[in-house]
Amino acid sequence: MSKDQLHIVKIGGNITGNEEKLDDFLLRFHKLKGKKIIVHGGGRQATELSEKLGIQAKMHEGRRITDDEAITVAVQVYAGLVNKKIVSKLQALGTNAIGLTGADMNLIKCSIRPKDPIDFGWVGDIEPDSVNVEQLDKLLSTGAVPVFCAITHDGAGHLLNTNADTIASALSAGMAKVYTEVDLTYCFEMPGVMRDIKDPGSLIKEIDSKLYDQLKAEEVVKDGMIPKLDNAFNAIESGVSKVHIQEASTLGNESGTTLIK
Amino acid sequence: MSKDQLHIVKIGGNITGNEEKLDDFLLRFHKLKGKKIIVHGGGRQATELSEKLGIQAKMHEGRRITDDEAITVAVQVYAGLVNKKIVSKLQALGTNAIGLTGADMNLIKCSIRPKDPIDFGWVGDIEPDSVNVEQLDKLLSTGAVPVFCAITHDGAGHLLNTNADTIASALSAGMAKVYTEVDLTYCFEMPGVMRDIKDPGSLIKEIDSKLYDQLKAEEVVKDGMIPKLDNAFNAIESGVSKVHIQEASTLGNESGTTLIK
Repeated sequence: MSKDQLHIVKIGGNITGNEEKLDDFLLRFHKLKGKKIIVHGGGRQATELSEKLGIQAKMHEGRRITDDEAITVAVQVYAGLVNKKIVSKLQALGTNAIGLTGADMNLIKCSIRPKDPIDFGWVGDIEPDSVNVEQLDKLLSTGAVPVFCAITHDGAGHLLNTNADTIASALSAGMAKVYTEVDLTYCFEMPGVMRDIKDPGSLIKEIDSKLYDQLKAEEVVKDGMIPKLDNAFNAIESGVSKVHIQEASTLGNESGTTLIK
Repeated sequence: MSKDQLHIVKIGGNITGNEEKLDDFLLRFHKLKGKKIIVHGGGRQATELSEKLGIQAKMHEGRRITDDEAITVAVQVYAGLVNKKIVSKLQALGTNAIGLTGADMNLIKCSIRPKDPIDFGWVGDIEPDSVNVEQLDKLLSTGAVPVFCAITHDGAGHLLNTNADTIASALSAGMAKVYTEVDLTYCFEMPGVMRDIKDPGSLIKEIDSKLYDQLKAEEVVKDGMIPKLDNAFNAIESGVSKVHIQEASTLGNESGTTLIK
């Protein structure tokens, strides 16, 4: 059974942590027509709570380790504070939001990252069948608008920290099995992918996988942008129609960078 | 359209804050047949987080005032930590739980308590039409098992702290409009209502509204038990079949006190 269109939009902590930017984004999201899903981060607010509690982030070579204290903070902030703030604000606008982790309705079941060679703690890696397409489709059919935070579970009673970009990509890929047209938008602190980040005129409007390889070779795309764009191209390989990368303040407009097959 | 049976079970912070008691309760809840809902508190864990953050509870004549700091803690702990722990544990047992506040799907819309004569802050009072019966019924129809925490909203973008006993009573009363048989169980730290709290043999097995008036007159029922039982009798007046008051460790057994019309 194939259905129409589904929009999946991912926002990061730079939006969720700024009341004015968040309100502007949510109004833009509210105006999007048809079925839709938000995926949000909230790392900045988690860092704030950790600091207030005097919890020091454990790191390994620049990568965060999610120990017992860190997952507790993440669940409080992502699934509690940030998620329910977004839900109540969307409800006030008239969008029938429902806040979710991957544990709710078993929507996203992950595997704990292998503890060898490094134990990253309560971190969940998404696998090809992690997204429970049937359950999520049932929920969408009630007219509810899912708002996912970056918390998943292992199916054995443990909550896990999972990268929000990856969740957005996996949800898009999964839902492309039942929706004719799924598009994924990464809201970003810049106008899109640019040849020169200091020059707004250097925005690249469209990237296909061939141009992507070229941009990586030229090091126009590098560092943190690579996993983000890899996630995006994985989604496209799995049947997602289009991926947009644009500023949150332009959601709903034709702007930013569009990734295509 | 009338449907079968619905069980609504309320647990307090003495269960949610104790891993062993919680696991035992959730296994008992998992075994209940048919449609079911949990409502939970979490006051003890909220107090713990407040203390760690050095936040002093604001009180007026023994009653808590929910200021900005207090609602932030409540949302983190009730909607985040406690709610999602219950959901992930139920999923591990095979119960298809979904964690909710009253903001999600606009399921429980409250009014902020009037600020005159005392401003209690972000506290929501339930009104007769607060429960969104149609939406909750849609959600139950997907096969999901709702897990409500004691957070609601005002429909204008504000999250509110609402008494969990009252939420359980209002949900029961609301759902009695579409289910033939709704029963409500308050899990409690004692075996039920007792004539002498030191004597387990003095348990009162059944109370109707006439006996309730008598027990209040005799001061067998007093203090904190009065609002709890008032909530229960309100539910019965609204069509709820039975209300049980029993220890969490006996859920599923015929024990404790049963309130009837």
